[in-house]
Amino acid sequence: MITSTANKQIKELTQLIKKSKARREERVFVVEGIRMFVEAPKEQVQAVYASESFLKDPEHMACLQGYDYEEVSDSVFASASDTKTPQGILCVVRMPEYSKETFFSESGGLYLVLENIQDPGNLGTMFRTGEGAGISGVILSRDTVDLFNPKTIRSTMGSVYRVPFLIADDLEAVIGEMKKQGVHLYAAHLKGEQSYDWFDYRESAAFLIGNEGNGLSERTASLADTYVRIPMEGKVESLNAAMASGILLYEAARQRRAAK
Amino acid sequence: MITSTANKQIKELTQLIKKSKARREERVFVVEGIRMFVEAPKEQVQAVYASESFLKDPEHMACLQGYDYEEVSDSVFASASDTKTPQGILCVVRMPEYSKETFFSESGGLYLVLENIQDPGNLGTMFRTGEGAGISGVILSRDTVDLFNPKTIRSTMGSVYRVPFLIADDLEAVIGEMKKQGVHLYAAHLKGEQSYDWFDYRESAAFLIGNEGNGLSERTASLADTYVRIPMEGKVESLNAAMASGILLYEAARQRRAAK
Repeated sequence: MITSTANKQIKELTQLIKKSKARREERVFVVEGIRMFVEAPKEQVQAVYASESFLKDPEHMACLQGYDYEEVSDSVFASASDTKTPQGILCVVRMPEYSKETFFSESGGLYLVLENIQDPGNLGTMFRTGEGAGISGVILSRDTVDLFNPKTIRSTMGSVYRVPFLIADDLEAVIGEMKKQGVHLYAAHLKGEQSYDWFDYRESAAFLIGNEGNGLSERTASLADTYVRIPMEGKVESLNAAMASGILLYEAARQRRAAK
Repeated sequence: MITSTANKQIKELTQLIKKSKARREERVFVVEGIRMFVEAPKEQVQAVYASESFLKDPEHMACLQGYDYEEVSDSVFASASDTKTPQGILCVVRMPEYSKETFFSESGGLYLVLENIQDPGNLGTMFRTGEGAGISGVILSRDTVDLFNPKTIRSTMGSVYRVPFLIADDLEAVIGEMKKQGVHLYAAHLKGEQSYDWFDYRESAAFLIGNEGNGLSERTASLADTYVRIPMEGKVESLNAAMASGILLYEAARQRRAAK
């Protein structure tokens, strides 16, 4: 049992939880809690740390069957954990990698393209809602908040394992690639004259969503094929970025269901 | 200028920021930041506190025209403020009150009925999105998180001033009243067999939304006229409560626009 925070593995684990650079270099991320452990694809799990108390529960032991794991004292576990009330299980998972070549080849694909989203909860919610709406993938600009930070991971509720994504060093190039593959790009934008539900999203479509405070950059907005407007009553100037994404994606999903 | 945190007014202000009981007794709440101040209905503003630095900006002074305000030293202001980077203006606002009698009399009204929502950000987002979708009002069960806590207020982005609401000591009685007034109650529920977009929301309609972790209580769910399902692909078991509300409300708004 590991009983000291000075333990080399615990030190590395803590670095991976805290530092996006460490995660990027090792190409792994850390998930917490029983649900995130159970949903992790087994072949991507690289290490499992379980607290003393966690291991006292026979149900927990059953979940761990077939996995190597390290037992950690409760106090060391609590100091490594990112949450206030740790569930007693931490797991190092290899980052999934998706090939750019196959990413846009799906016919009738549905995508989100995110520019400079800053709130981890928003990003996680976009993955979760995106999976629900049947999204094909998410493209994230390099300056979007780290997908693998613990708060984002938690808000995805497991969707991070299942929704394909690309982190784009050059967003403009990726958008160019999407257009070549016949994906129509819609930007939620104040310049949009027609309401979002006026358009037909049954063919390959992507929604461009910008930063929470500033929206899309002019450059990125100019790459869109069509501007759409989400109508707002009262004095509302904008919706939360995750909410706007969800409303657009579920409208696309609605049209696609209706067409079946 | 107030220069001590021991000042009686500052002590009272701090109580109002921190304690929901104090807010309820005084029937006031506290908003922070220039935007929330500017949007506050003037007749409801009871007191304004501005920091020394805030008052050095002529634009800020212009905003304050016509208001009595107290100048507060920067350090006292920072200690009273609920935010990490205070904008320098705090404002005590009288709670709006809406009469139960007129609340449901609007023909073709659109409502959210919230049971035991616990996340302040979710509640605030529901008000903001609700205003955007053209909602008539929100009904909150007594055990829902306090609408007037600073985090909720911030996430409403000002909608708390404009969206009518009722805090229901007896949710069942209020739902009974709604039914009498001809409001059809839809519950987002796993028991729902038909997708939400299959129904017609152009007449008076309300959506029942339950707690983030547990959904609606059985008792409240049993009061619904119709269960609706939000289809979810992949392994998504539920959507975030605010997201579900937004998707339902915007579907109702879409149908109402299309009918015009």
